[in-house]
Amino acid sequence: MNLTQGLHRAVQRRPDGTATICGARVRTHAESVDRIARLAGGLRDLGLGDGDRAAVLSLNSDSYHEMLAATWWAGGVVVPVNLRWSVAEIAESLVEVDARVLLVDDAFAGSVAGIHAAHPRLQHVLHAGDGPAPDGAIALDELVERSAPVEDAHRGGDDLAALFYTGGTTGRSKGVMLSHDNLLTSTLGTLATEQFISPDGTYLHAAPMFHIADLTAWLGQLVRGGTHVFIPAFEPVAVLTAVVEHGVTDVLLVPTMIQMLVDHPRTEEFDLTGLRRVLYGASPMSEGVLDRALKTLPDAAFTQFYGMTELSPLATGLSAADHDDPVRRRSAGRALPHTEVRIVDSDDVELPRGEVGEIVVRGDNVMLGYWDRPAETAEALRGGWMHTGDGGYMDDDGYVYIADRIKDMIITGGENVYSAEVESVLTGHPAVATCAVIGIPDEKWGERVHAVVVPAAGASVTIGELREFCADRIAGYKTPKSMELIDSLPLSGAGKVLKVELRKPYWAGRQRAVN
Amino acid sequence: MNLTQGLHRAVQRRPDGTATICGARVRTHAESVDRIARLAGGLRDLGLGDGDRAAVLSLNSDSYHEMLAATWWAGGVVVPVNLRWSVAEIAESLVEVDARVLLVDDAFAGSVAGIHAAHPRLQHVLHAGDGPAPDGAIALDELVERSAPVEDAHRGGDDLAALFYTGGTTGRSKGVMLSHDNLLTSTLGTLATEQFISPDGTYLHAAPMFHIADLTAWLGQLVRGGTHVFIPAFEPVAVLTAVVEHGVTDVLLVPTMIQMLVDHPRTEEFDLTGLRRVLYGASPMSEGVLDRALKTLPDAAFTQFYGMTELSPLATGLSAADHDDPVRRRSAGRALPHTEVRIVDSDDVELPRGEVGEIVVRGDNVMLGYWDRPAETAEALRGGWMHTGDGGYMDDDGYVYIADRIKDMIITGGENVYSAEVESVLTGHPAVATCAVIGIPDEKWGERVHAVVVPAAGASVTIGELREFCADRIAGYKTPKSMELIDSLPLSGAGKVLKVELRKPYWAGRQRAVN
Repeated sequence: MNLTQGLHRAVQRRPDGTATICGARVRTHAESVDRIARLAGGLRDLGLGDGDRAAVLSLNSDSYHEMLAATWWAGGVVVPVNLRWSVAEIAESLVEVDARVLLVDDAFAGSVAGIHAAHPRLQHVLHAGDGPAPDGAIALDELVERSAPVEDAHRGGDDLAALFYTGGTTGRSKGVMLSHDNLLTSTLGTLATEQFISPDGTYLHAAPMFHIADLTAWLGQLVRGGTHVFIPAFEPVAVLTAVVEHGVTDVLLVPTMIQMLVDHPRTEEFDLTGLRRVLYGASPMSEGVLDRALKTLPDAAFTQFYGMTELSPLATGLSAADHDDPVRRRSAGRALPHTEVRIVDSDDVELPRGEVGEIVVRGDNVMLGYWDRPAETAEALRGGWMHTGDGGYMDDDGYVYIADRIKDMIITGGENVYSAEVESVLTGHPAVATCAVIGIPDEKWGERVHAVVVPAAGASVTIGELREFCADRIAGYKTPKSMELIDSLPLSGAGKVLKVELRKPYWAGRQRAVN
Repeated sequence: MNLTQGLHRAVQRRPDGTATICGARVRTHAESVDRIARLAGGLRDLGLGDGDRAAVLSLNSDSYHEMLAATWWAGGVVVPVNLRWSVAEIAESLVEVDARVLLVDDAFAGSVAGIHAAHPRLQHVLHAGDGPAPDGAIALDELVERSAPVEDAHRGGDDLAALFYTGGTTGRSKGVMLSHDNLLTSTLGTLATEQFISPDGTYLHAAPMFHIADLTAWLGQLVRGGTHVFIPAFEPVAVLTAVVEHGVTDVLLVPTMIQMLVDHPRTEEFDLTGLRRVLYGASPMSEGVLDRALKTLPDAAFTQFYGMTELSPLATGLSAADHDDPVRRRSAGRALPHTEVRIVDSDDVELPRGEVGEIVVRGDNVMLGYWDRPAETAEALRGGWMHTGDGGYMDDDGYVYIADRIKDMIITGGENVYSAEVESVLTGHPAVATCAVIGIPDEKWGERVHAVVVPAAGASVTIGELREFCADRIAGYKTPKSMELIDSLPLSGAGKVLKVELRKPYWAGRQRAVN
């Protein structure tokens, strides 16, 4: 399989149909693919050969779309860069994978000098935007216009297609190597659920495109040959406006975004009945937020997907119908059509249903490996299964319940407490907008349960009330022993709560068992 | 990807759900997969090693299902045998692929002695049925009961999974080699249309399982993990009864079967509203039959798929909504999500839209090759595209219109006549049940258009009336110059009209340009 197939089909099926909408700029499939074939020609002229890496450091846009597609069309490998990273971190990753070309937009033009200084082998910088271009950069449009379209290089199968740097929440980032087959296996298998990107629809890129959560939806729409709408970054009113203005049918959001959207005071001004499917994942959604989301968007089918970059990225799915079941809706769903999922103990032996262990996954969606890290690759893929590092259990119908990231699990007095469970209870309180539960050092118990709470707008609540609320619903050892109120949680670029940041002040100078 | 994945998921998701219904015999997923793992153990004990071939010569049944699955579970390669073949033809193919094991049912127990005589290397014959077993055969149930379950051999990817002998309509049969990835690419890509096997449904095997048309639906249901219902062979009342009795939601039929079903006098006695999706393909459906089918089953979504064994098997699909368009419904639809389709001239150059050429297909669904026929493989796959041998054109929206099998095309006075077009007009006449249009020798024009017509039950029609009906609708050179009335058309095992048989008496002692 090769990732450019969908472009050929789209031109064949709907040459005059809309491929991309980015602000006032609208392009048909014929126009968009012509630009992609020209940009690929330009990239080849600049020296990008088969398997060479081209990085993108940009907010969402049609240029991002064209750069990803053109890199594959030219035979290259895409490296989407995490927008939250420092210039030093970005440069380090681009040195590691020896990126030859970098596309930046106006928002990141200012980072180029610093990246270039640390990575002199970076040969060409492309710039897409109206603002001042970095020194020596080539304007994307100029490259497109001056270059002749080339034939699709038609790389595919096990050829490396993308490098994603994972994490940022803990540990040093690793470059995850994904092939054409890896990415298309996850895409086709997820489309096969009839719950992913809908046929003949319009998808809104609101989550950041550098993250594989939005990228997998981008690939789904690439296979479908539908319309992509881009907003630079998530912002509730921008999402609401785009949905109405462009007839958006499908969107992927992370739970934090859904919370901000459904709790936004202007949401009710917009007619959102055109939204057919809301996809979410990347982190668990608390029940309180899910309830409010289902009420705000009663016409949309909510589907949850669970996975990770190393799985290209999807492993399980919770269908819209499953959301009607009060128990199942707390799960991450069941193995998707392209993959196998098991729960194993630390010796990789499958555990009985209901017992918490590590979630492992097998299938053609499992990464080729970590860039230049053979030992960590072998460790992650031991026995032919990807070890997710997530703790969870499976019920008798194959539903996977994520207990916690194994490193977010709190061990207090020898008992395991899953932060996700406590968070789910806390967000059920009407005065709680969102929260994070972490383990902090405790002289007596080793760790104790601590809650960091963001109060709902205009709500007033005391820590004592919240403790009582929890104590009525969960065991005493799970009830937070301490709490703090905070304005907002620190988030990663993908919208995941950075628990490592929350834990840091408490653990300064100490060592957690797992971190 | 590996073809046994779906079995593992089914046991995980619905251990107590119904896997197979065959007459009075009902088995859950847990029971069925346990039998498959035992049968795989038995096959290994009998000496079936990785990549060894196991053949099946049987009407549809749960034993067929178990044998296919167990062969893969054991690491072997399945060889479904064409039921219409003579014992000599069967033996010849089994010698060619060196099949070591053969499963037969009661209907074919009598063929074993002849096969064994011609193929002494056949080591073991398994028998599933209540009738007398062939000499030396092992009862399938006995092998299942006496064998311990084994671990799934977990072969997959490019490993050979199945050998299908194609054709029978013309020329010498070739063994088409399909890998696990080939078959799963077509399956997942077709499921991704949201028009193939429905989620959580019940599929009826009415078309013969040895043919890849039903086998692809079987694979779709294997991935879905739903329920399989088996009837030994297509028979209208058996289909109608099974649909009502077992709550069948999905069925694949070839057009000849649909015609027999909708024209059957007892059809209206049955409540068929539970049927969600009727899949058809393998040969074109005439408009008259399609109209009657849409009227008989107004609640079912009709979807057409086009492909061939060498494409594992699917390349294009015509959605249910496309059937509402009077022009598009005459097409075979558009490229499926896993594949690329083009129309090329004899130099493999892509033709402009609307021009008839050869349909070629590219993607991971394209076969590994023909067994032991490297020259024919290279010829069929030249340039990396599978050359289908079908003539057709593509419209501006990517819809592929099959003009004809290139060898069924009639050349009369230098004009190309596509038999499918003439057949479509003829079956629009209310007195015509079905028909076949062929080219027969003509002194003046080289070939002339000849129609073989099966009149509708109870209808009376004259050849003169039919000629006039055609002459009102198509050009003079396309109107049949001669006709014959016949009780039924000769069909291949897959339900395709054997035009070579119809042509034979006319061409005796002569050579057609293409045959």
